Amino acid sequence: MRDVCIIGAYETKHGSFKERSLRDLITEAGNGAIRDSRMDRKEIQAVYVGNYAGNEFNGQNTIGSLAATILGLGDKPAIRFEGACASGGIAVRQAYWAVATGQYDTVLALGVEKMNGLDPNGTMQVVSRGQDQDFEGGFCISGPSGFALNAVRHMHEFGTTKEQMGMIAEKNYYHGSLNPFAHKQKTLTLERIIKAPMISYPFGLHDVSLVTDASAAVVITTMDRAKGIRDKLVKIAGSGQGGDYFTSAMKESSVSFSASVRAAKEAYAMAGATASDIDVLECHDCFTVTEIINIEDLGFVEKGRGGPFTAEGHTRLGGKIPVNTSGGLKAKGHPIGATGVGQVVEMTFQLRDESEGRQVKNAKTAMTHVLGGPGAVSIVHILKRVEK
Amino acid sequence: MRDVCIIGAYETKHGSFKERSLRDLITEAGNGAIRDSRMDRKEIQAVYVGNYAGNEFNGQNTIGSLAATILGLGDKPAIRFEGACASGGIAVRQAYWAVATGQYDTVLALGVEKMNGLDPNGTMQVVSRGQDQDFEGGFCISGPSGFALNAVRHMHEFGTTKEQMGMIAEKNYYHGSLNPFAHKQKTLTLERIIKAPMISYPFGLHDVSLVTDASAAVVITTMDRAKGIRDKLVKIAGSGQGGDYFTSAMKESSVSFSASVRAAKEAYAMAGATASDIDVLECHDCFTVTEIINIEDLGFVEKGRGGPFTAEGHTRLGGKIPVNTSGGLKAKGHPIGATGVGQVVEMTFQLRDESEGRQVKNAKTAMTHVLGGPGAVSIVHILKRVEK
Repeated sequence: MRDVCIIGAYETKHGSFKERSLRDLITEAGNGAIRDSRMDRKEIQAVYVGNYAGNEFNGQNTIGSLAATILGLGDKPAIRFEGACASGGIAVRQAYWAVATGQYDTVLALGVEKMNGLDPNGTMQVVSRGQDQDFEGGFCISGPSGFALNAVRHMHEFGTTKEQMGMIAEKNYYHGSLNPFAHKQKTLTLERIIKAPMISYPFGLHDVSLVTDASAAVVITTMDRAKGIRDKLVKIAGSGQGGDYFTSAMKESSVSFSASVRAAKEAYAMAGATASDIDVLECHDCFTVTEIINIEDLGFVEKGRGGPFTAEGHTRLGGKIPVNTSGGLKAKGHPIGATGVGQVVEMTFQLRDESEGRQVKNAKTAMTHVLGGPGAVSIVHILKRVEK
Repeated sequence: MRDVCIIGAYETKHGSFKERSLRDLITEAGNGAIRDSRMDRKEIQAVYVGNYAGNEFNGQNTIGSLAATILGLGDKPAIRFEGACASGGIAVRQAYWAVATGQYDTVLALGVEKMNGLDPNGTMQVVSRGQDQDFEGGFCISGPSGFALNAVRHMHEFGTTKEQMGMIAEKNYYHGSLNPFAHKQKTLTLERIIKAPMISYPFGLHDVSLVTDASAAVVITTMDRAKGIRDKLVKIAGSGQGGDYFTSAMKESSVSFSASVRAAKEAYAMAGATASDIDVLECHDCFTVTEIINIEDLGFVEKGRGGPFTAEGHTRLGGKIPVNTSGGLKAKGHPIGATGVGQVVEMTFQLRDESEGRQVKNAKTAMTHVLGGPGAVSIVHILKRVEK
């Protein structure tokens, strides 16, 4: 196994863009990451793409080959990976593995989703196809109502409150307000968050992530190739994938996502690290309660302590372990296939001290975490700064 | 790199099945392959799925996690791979690589597509999303009319005839008539094939592959683990992936698929083999001319000689290099995500001397080849029989 690093990273502005096409988003992100890598485009040997449902959102499938073609790499092997909201994380992990094992020396991992365009019901239908249609989707269990079951159980077992969930939203809006690439760049008061119209109890409008258009990309290469290029390199020190049953009723727990626990265990073991080594975390806050559950599952706090830990401010910029400095899915946005790649972009910038206005001081080790399908796929990466 | 083999293989009957669900097809193929592997289900460490458009055909996305769940492997990492008509081949190749490099010891690679259910126009629309929508799909270049351009150019440059293309269909219908799992189990005369209603010149109804429902699966493990299980093992001796531009106008040639050439070069080099070592071939006959072009691109005949070589009977059962003994996409059928996996199933049975009624005598080395998107992705595998 070769040491592997992120040598280039870029993401587009996140938002709802009538005037931007899927092609346009891919062009900007892919070329941005290649430019940032300071490598010759010709050195890229494969193009790996995370995309959830371009065929339904944009009438375009097979976006691996599309992206390779757009970026002048059409003669290179291209693959599209899909695992619902974890699709982008899968693309990064598979690219990492290909480079680590010598299949390819340099791979572009890109994520993209252009979700806005359908009417809201259409969007919800496309998104809900990432759940078991025979046993859940067909019975009106959507993303919000499915995760709401996790929320009420967490409230019941641990006394987690709607206020604590609101504090996740308040924090992530605050972080997003500092990120020029975020979909929502505004702060909201906790009161307004809690009094927002109900979506699915206990989730109000601001407990829910955004429907976002964006693309993100990273260039992944061997540490040996990267050494001459930059002084601050971002090494992929650990990578893990965990699975869990697709059908919620088959899952072991409603207050933990086993897929996250398994992915983190693998990534920690590979990196020889524990949660106490992590300086900054991007995790999958598709709903506010998900971030509470994530910080428990990933080992930052004991099970049930996620709410109080948040309320104590430890996950805010300046806290013990800043979480979702980008604004997360809540405020940066959740362009499904791009989300897992965008997290790696954000953590790369943090580890290179380039997160102006939201920089975590002296961040040396970072973690990314995505969760898809719902709770059926999780990808965790541990990134470390390596200096000359 | 560890030696890797196919230890279990299974595919469902191919057809147009009103009464069978996506879930049902996955259940039969996955459990069939596990049973055929003679391994304990618990030894499978990951589930890799090729599927093209379950979200549009069946209202179900994220079929990696669905398949893992159905097969009692929901706690294992699962990924869905998509590269248009090459999706199943990608799943096999990624599973091979994961086992060869020690990421996992045993992986189930499954392909599935349930295409029948939409009206014919709907089906065509879903399939055409595997092409560049901005520059081709939007201008009425579909699969048939796109490949028809390759056909007329091949006719112009090399004198390939509609009769020679018809002979591909006649042969593959004949092979399919010997395969109880084929969608079409009947022979057709060359005259009837040539006089069939026109789809897109020069393609008549019988120059075109079928819209098919099916699932296929293989269990991939290390040679060391497999040795105690069977006397005849099928080793994955070579694996290659090639890419080409997604947009046809950007391709170098209209009479060759560069993606196939690149994939074959990689697979031949890994296996230390040439075309003369191959005893039997399953290749991507999405249209009759594609098989003619494939046998040229894969090195079995010189460029331009595919038509005459077919007419001389060399690719028929009993010929020098039997091609598509299963019936191919033409007669076994083309359940998009399952196709690339089903080819590996067919070649596994040939190499284990289990292809009753269509067995190629003394088959020791086989090749599989898929092409997707159109002509933008190709996967080639070389399989070898290893006996105790």
